[in-house]
Amino acid sequence: MKKTFGRLPAVLLVLLVAASCGPSAPRLDAAADPLPSWADRAPKQRILDFVARVTEEGGADYVPPAERIATFDNDGTLWQEKPLYVQFAFLFHEIDRMAPNHPEWKKTQPFRAALEHDFEAIDKLGLQAGLTLLLTTHTGMTQQEFARRAADFFATARHPRYHRRYTELVYQPMLELLDLLRAHDFRIFIVSGGTVELIRSFAGDVYGILPENVVGTSFRYRFEAEPAPGRIWREPKIVSFNDRGEKPANIQLHIGRRPILAVGNSDGDIQMLEFAPRSRPHLALLVHHDDAAREYDYDKGAEEALKLAEANGWQVISIKDDFLRVFPFEGD
Amino acid sequence: MKKTFGRLPAVLLVLLVAASCGPSAPRLDAAADPLPSWADRAPKQRILDFVARVTEEGGADYVPPAERIATFDNDGTLWQEKPLYVQFAFLFHEIDRMAPNHPEWKKTQPFRAALEHDFEAIDKLGLQAGLTLLLTTHTGMTQQEFARRAADFFATARHPRYHRRYTELVYQPMLELLDLLRAHDFRIFIVSGGTVELIRSFAGDVYGILPENVVGTSFRYRFEAEPAPGRIWREPKIVSFNDRGEKPANIQLHIGRRPILAVGNSDGDIQMLEFAPRSRPHLALLVHHDDAAREYDYDKGAEEALKLAEANGWQVISIKDDFLRVFPFEGD
Repeated sequence: MKKTFGRLPAVLLVLLVAASCGPSAPRLDAAADPLPSWADRAPKQRILDFVARVTEEGGADYVPPAERIATFDNDGTLWQEKPLYVQFAFLFHEIDRMAPNHPEWKKTQPFRAALEHDFEAIDKLGLQAGLTLLLTTHTGMTQQEFARRAADFFATARHPRYHRRYTELVYQPMLELLDLLRAHDFRIFIVSGGTVELIRSFAGDVYGILPENVVGTSFRYRFEAEPAPGRIWREPKIVSFNDRGEKPANIQLHIGRRPILAVGNSDGDIQMLEFAPRSRPHLALLVHHDDAAREYDYDKGAEEALKLAEANGWQVISIKDDFLRVFPFEGD
Repeated sequence: MKKTFGRLPAVLLVLLVAASCGPSAPRLDAAADPLPSWADRAPKQRILDFVARVTEEGGADYVPPAERIATFDNDGTLWQEKPLYVQFAFLFHEIDRMAPNHPEWKKTQPFRAALEHDFEAIDKLGLQAGLTLLLTTHTGMTQQEFARRAADFFATARHPRYHRRYTELVYQPMLELLDLLRAHDFRIFIVSGGTVELIRSFAGDVYGILPENVVGTSFRYRFEAEPAPGRIWREPKIVSFNDRGEKPANIQLHIGRRPILAVGNSDGDIQMLEFAPRSRPHLALLVHHDDAAREYDYDKGAEEALKLAEANGWQVISIKDDFLRVFPFEGD
């Protein structure tokens, strides 16, 4: 160690001194690889090139920080989504918890299927069945109560294959990408089909993304003044199912600008990936699940997006080939 | 000038040197008064005390930056709202512009009243009349087209009394308060009854508040994929009229946390001022329009809020007594 230090080139010494005197805001060490869990392939190179181009002051592609909007889908993009969306794992967890007060559920659909954790049966029952279960488990309570239920779920539930908490099953390369973007003054938003408050309940701890930067499927809220200082009642009514065309619509409503970087993994993300600024550089990334050994291998629900990727210049990310490490705990 | 510099006390010299070497993020000079346009009275003192308390690391009332949410009403709170909400000035401007293509408007209400710029007549016609005018001027077009209309209005329209652009008629003391909060890592949101994209069209330039930090009355958006890269169509349907109880409801939806600082001026802000965190310090401010000479003098629409202020410990701000300067251009 001493020997190495003695041979440090002058440029590194200058960097070390500069770092010790510099601003306290976290910045990337220029000498280090900001994406160590990404293989040296096209996606990593395109990301690094894009970030360099849009942040080079005076450059032709410079984008001011106010317009450096990055939007990420969540399920299958920032964390894994198999064998079940975490949203449905939470839903089954809640149905199980509530079941003792609802003996009639054993004989009524879609509750019986939910008690059997039979996602396929629910899917076959149709959209209304899923909606009924969603409203039963997500509404008819205060926001405070819902936040408590979400916290309880994430504290206790484990993934059936990895036997880890769901919040551990985030993609390490995506955590690195989020850090890279933050270090370059991007403003990062989750734009997910998941319900907004469920995502908010872990996004701060897990991704460093604050509640106001989460856009998701939402329910009607009603303010109740009593008891002081008032509370939010979650009404059994969906305001927006944040998927497909609703993603750009909600990006306009909540963010007010088109993203210069958009990241997704399924057909539900197509419209968000299309929704680029007209006169700014833009990068769209599509995660492809092709790694049965470390994660999952499936194209279902992403067939159209994968077809469009080539025509539209979207960068496909192969979990198998591009992710040197999939989850943060690998190598533990 | 030279003489003064020669007598600079050592502490100021140290500050000057520190400032020249410090981080590049803007920070307040500790020696300067951050609120020079505020009279040395209770509101200024309460604001300074509150900001000091919640940002004192290790202090009993410390609030981490992630929870330093400040919400501001816009009309009558950040800028003037008389004789007409700027929203209605824009609406009349648009009705005038569109009128040549609608000769029938001369004979049909509520358009005739709008052509006569008769706000009282519209008010008497009832809620539906105002709604019809709002939808006619704000929807049935792309978001890009609406943004252009808003920009045209603010570039050309003048206030009937001050003969200034509306964007000049912001309260200087509030600009200073916004700067003070930013320097202390507050996250600042506008939560207004005005329509969200109209406010976004000037909030960046005027307040330094980015589009994603503006919550307002909103319309239904629909994404159209063609022509690429897609566009947002503004449908003639109100999603949320962001007033009274809708303010806390939309704060939950868009921000996801209760504000520790809330600022308003009318009965429409009561619920937002009530919506405080349960276990955090909280400050609510209510602007009182009592200065006919420099601004306007009216309690109408704020009677209930003024009554509640005392009972609830909300700090009333008198424009007459607390604002040493009302508008930035004063003294020009």
